[in-house]
Amino acid sequence: MTERGILIVLSGPSGVGKGTVRKAIFDSGEMDFAYSISMTTRKMRAGEKDGVDYFFRSKEEFEALIESGGLLEYAQYVDNYYGTPLKYVEDTLNSGQDVFLEIEVNGAMQVRSKMPEGVFIFLTPPDIKELKSRIMHRGTDEMAVVEKRLEKAVEEIKMMRYYDYAVENDKVENAVNKIKHIIESEHLKVPRVVNQYRKIIEEM
Amino acid sequence: MTERGILIVLSGPSGVGKGTVRKAIFDSGEMDFAYSISMTTRKMRAGEKDGVDYFFRSKEEFEALIESGGLLEYAQYVDNYYGTPLKYVEDTLNSGQDVFLEIEVNGAMQVRSKMPEGVFIFLTPPDIKELKSRIMHRGTDEMAVVEKRLEKAVEEIKMMRYYDYAVENDKVENAVNKIKHIIESEHLKVPRVVNQYRKIIEEM
Repeated sequence: MTERGILIVLSGPSGVGKGTVRKAIFDSGEMDFAYSISMTTRKMRAGEKDGVDYFFRSKEEFEALIESGGLLEYAQYVDNYYGTPLKYVEDTLNSGQDVFLEIEVNGAMQVRSKMPEGVFIFLTPPDIKELKSRIMHRGTDEMAVVEKRLEKAVEEIKMMRYYDYAVENDKVENAVNKIKHIIESEHLKVPRVVNQYRKIIEEM
Repeated sequence: MTERGILIVLSGPSGVGKGTVRKAIFDSGEMDFAYSISMTTRKMRAGEKDGVDYFFRSKEEFEALIESGGLLEYAQYVDNYYGTPLKYVEDTLNSGQDVFLEIEVNGAMQVRSKMPEGVFIFLTPPDIKELKSRIMHRGTDEMAVVEKRLEKAVEEIKMMRYYDYAVENDKVENAVNKIKHIIESEHLKVPRVVNQYRKIIEEM
């Protein structure tokens, strides 16, 4: 019997460095995650492939999926939908492979309600000044925009309580190691390994 | 505010190598654990010190402690009691330091009932043949004794379900690393770190 894979959700405030940490984890090549392919209603660009870069769907198809609960999470940006198809994630987990999702806080909360058994990791800024500086140096935005983003960050940090683990992103390398150790430990939890031991017991 | 330390309980079947793994973890010097000093009614030996090697107590004092619930766990071997004083463990945890206990399965279950919030790690044999060989090569016991010990091991493995994590002792080094990662991850759990982040939020 194959053990079901673990859904790992990495989230955190805007500007905390989620993407960098996720990339470093995947690039390290040590972990065996399935890449979760997103679904979108935006137009396919040159060089992109359906089912590889995204699952490209019409607005109608996407909205039908929303209706039927077929999306683990979704959001609308400008005029397009982006989301994570539930079936793809379910099938991958059932095949015994872990799935790693790096998403915004809002999306993470949607996932929490659909798959509460996932492992939810919140990436936190080492301190507020650092976060402020990261947000401010991101582009050439006006102060009002920066302040709005900071406010949003405060709200997002308050969401930490809905997560299982909090990992400080003081250094990408440290955050990556901690996340790897969390995943390793989660695989050692008794309810996840108990079937392997049934065999030992039966032989005795 | 100091975060309360974590009580880590390492247990597992007789002969699985609990003592070796515990010693390797302590010898590595990387972890900051308090050493839990046991209490006993046996006579102090030459060179031993009260409060260092053991807390040496009379049988009457020990039994009074059992009565009043002052022992986290205890057992009787031959004519003497051995146990873990609750107050010492509580004080150490409250000071912010982790406490590491390596004990028999029966003692671990007593701890579970008194401190369910502890992290309970079950060390498992890589396979039954290996366990059988470890038990048989332990001494020059007769077959009946060996078989009794094996039976006991089966019973103990069935206790795994009451633990949080199962770690295979295939190699001491692997088991040690896994246990270290479990402890590191436990320290990253949101309920344990949330107070540190309150300050960040208040500053924003």
